[in-house]
Amino acid sequence: MSNFKLDEVSKVLTEVRKRVPLVHCITNYVTINDCANVLLSYGASPAMCEAYDEVFNFVKISSALYINVGTLTKEQETAAILASMSAKINNIPVVLDPVACAAIPRKIQVIDRILKVGRIDVIKGNIGEIKFLAGETSSVKGVDSLDTGEGALDSCIALSDKYNCVVAATGKKDFVAYGKNSAIIENGTEMLTKITGAGCMVGALCGGAAGAFEDKFISTVSAILSMNIAGEEAYREAKAPGSFRVKLIDYIYELSEEKLKKEGKITWN
Amino acid sequence: MSNFKLDEVSKVLTEVRKRVPLVHCITNYVTINDCANVLLSYGASPAMCEAYDEVFNFVKISSALYINVGTLTKEQETAAILASMSAKINNIPVVLDPVACAAIPRKIQVIDRILKVGRIDVIKGNIGEIKFLAGETSSVKGVDSLDTGEGALDSCIALSDKYNCVVAATGKKDFVAYGKNSAIIENGTEMLTKITGAGCMVGALCGGAAGAFEDKFISTVSAILSMNIAGEEAYREAKAPGSFRVKLIDYIYELSEEKLKKEGKITWN
Amino acid sequence: MSNFKLDEVSKVLTEVRKRVPLVHCITNYVTINDCANVLLSYGASPAMCEAYDEVFNFVKISSALYINVGTLTKEQETAAILASMSAKINNIPVVLDPVACAAIPRKIQVIDRILKVGRIDVIKGNIGEIKFLAGETSSVKGVDSLDTGEGALDSCIALSDKYNCVVAATGKKDFVAYGKNSAIIENGTEMLTKITGAGCMVGALCGGAAGAFEDKFISTVSAILSMNIAGEEAYREAKAPGSFRVKLIDYIYELSEEKLKKEGKITWN
Repeated sequence: MSNFKLDEVSKVLTEVRKRVPLVHCITNYVTINDCANVLLSYGASPAMCEAYDEVFNFVKISSALYINVGTLTKEQETAAILASMSAKINNIPVVLDPVACAAIPRKIQVIDRILKVGRIDVIKGNIGEIKFLAGETSSVKGVDSLDTGEGALDSCIALSDKYNCVVAATGKKDFVAYGKNSAIIENGTEMLTKITGAGCMVGALCGGAAGAFEDKFISTVSAILSMNIAGEEAYREAKAPGSFRVKLIDYIYELSEEKLKKEGKITWN
Repeated sequence: MSNFKLDEVSKVLTEVRKRVPLVHCITNYVTINDCANVLLSYGASPAMCEAYDEVFNFVKISSALYINVGTLTKEQETAAILASMSAKINNIPVVLDPVACAAIPRKIQVIDRILKVGRIDVIKGNIGEIKFLAGETSSVKGVDSLDTGEGALDSCIALSDKYNCVVAATGKKDFVAYGKNSAIIENGTEMLTKITGAGCMVGALCGGAAGAFEDKFISTVSAILSMNIAGEEAYREAKAPGSFRVKLIDYIYELSEEKLKKEGKITWN
Repeated sequence: MSNFKLDEVSKVLTEVRKRVPLVHCITNYVTINDCANVLLSYGASPAMCEAYDEVFNFVKISSALYINVGTLTKEQETAAILASMSAKINNIPVVLDPVACAAIPRKIQVIDRILKVGRIDVIKGNIGEIKFLAGETSSVKGVDSLDTGEGALDSCIALSDKYNCVVAATGKKDFVAYGKNSAIIENGTEMLTKITGAGCMVGALCGGAAGAFEDKFISTVSAILSMNIAGEEAYREAKAPGSFRVKLIDYIYELSEEKLKKEGKITWN
């Protein structure tokens, strides 16, 4: 069974490249360029559309909506809520990245509003953020999680039940849950924590995968696995963050179904 | 005649480096860093000034104004319109990048207002955008053009007549028109479509060239040619997008009049 | 004495890496990604928090606040002033980067307000900006200083007296003053002027150093020296700006106390 699922996970990449999903992103300005570049390298088509008088209609022509609450301006906040409403009406999948929600209460208000009026198909956060959203205590420092990951899968499962959506918590290991299904991914490299935007880029990739593949549990596992394996390959060649970032984008571009199948270390439950 | 024009086109680069034009940019946050870096490598001096209470006066000390409507916030929208008014009053050349105008109606409203109260010397868009502005149908996907380029030169000529400005449409081939003059540029590499910001960077370079050279038709051809030739050189060394971006900036920096003259493939009409 | 001080300067790096200071940044969108990455490579933890309803509380959990007035939006302006008030109340060190203050009067108004209601521990600008703030004439072009540096140390001393804070002026040589203490740093490379954000990144590093070390004069000298030495090393391997930027981040990451001690060229007064 395990191999069968990894096969499916790997196929997501081919679907992304075949369908070239238009990923509508409302995201923070720190890593907005990284998100656009990683989506292009992945095979998707990013569009950073965030004016509140543009988003409602733009969502309609999009394959997926990625909302990252990292440094939401007031204009972006309004846009994110309107865009999520449009996604609900137009049946467009939404990936939410609850950046810094454990450190900054306003993030929670925005997320609550999106949950009320819009829709969320996938929540992808770091372990600290996911535990916080699941109502548990966790250790965070600003936008970073200091959590070791113990109990993270349970938090994903609890949050998935609460919101009836796919939930992913990234860290040293990555955890993904949806209903009775869950996965633990053990690829990746610590160097991903030495560059800004690794989390945001994973979130954007989750958007790309969700826009090209029906099963959002599988698509989310695939997006995270893609980032991790590209990270492993980049780290083999580049041991410092500047060079690593460059190689990371290169290896996202050079991913293949075969590579994902061969390198993927996933435990399914 | 052809060689004489290519000589002139190549000279623009030397003028940019001699005059170091201050290019006032109001541009989207996705690629704002790329635009600043490409202008510095080109030899120009970028200044991203976009507060509405700053731009009117800042335009006065600038050599050119570059307006990119990619992700215009409300503040930037006001700033862009005020800046274009100041450019008209103070006789500063304006380059407009009508990003996503075919997909998002609001962009057209902003462009119309700039045309009414300000000035535009050069419009540089992708083929889908230029055809749309020229009132023709075209195929676009979000911010990207899916157009093959057939009829693009006619669209440039029509739009140039309509607004009495230089018009450039970039794609597999690039087209530039002004009045009776037109040029088709056949340099470049498809890898430029695998990174975000290639179009924005070309637009910024058009601003740099316009700020240093009187003839805006020639300066626009030169800016586009510069990007294309740097792209070709970058692609020779880097076959994946992360590395390609790095080399692209390197080769903009290492451009020379001689290289432009030797490598330029331009058909004049 | 000279060696004793360089030892202390070098120790700042180890303190940053031990304490991992949370650096709250309110900074321009042109180089916001560079600032985050350089802080991560330095060993600090960046957080770009800038919503006016978030900053007051976020400052409390931060080790230092970095305010860069480069392209301050209205939201950021309000946030910067509120954050500086919180910093005063909560005793958090503040580093101010007065980008373009000599070219754009609004910057001065913002700085004045911060000085009135908040606090400033370190002002780090280019020579043109520091001279302007000190009430002297200087030659600037947009955001760049054309000043040769003559008299720059006197300007730093005068401004340090005026505001009772550490003042640093960067250029071909760098000058730092606080009360009776001053330092001239002669490391660095001109290639730092060919990329955007070198000044902003130095400012961010000053924030990181201030968040981890008690003596803000020494911490500021250390941050500037770190950037310069990493720049020298990057330039040895990369002679064009695209590659240079990548290596610069790499060499910030690979800095060591020993390297700073060995390579530092500082004259103390």
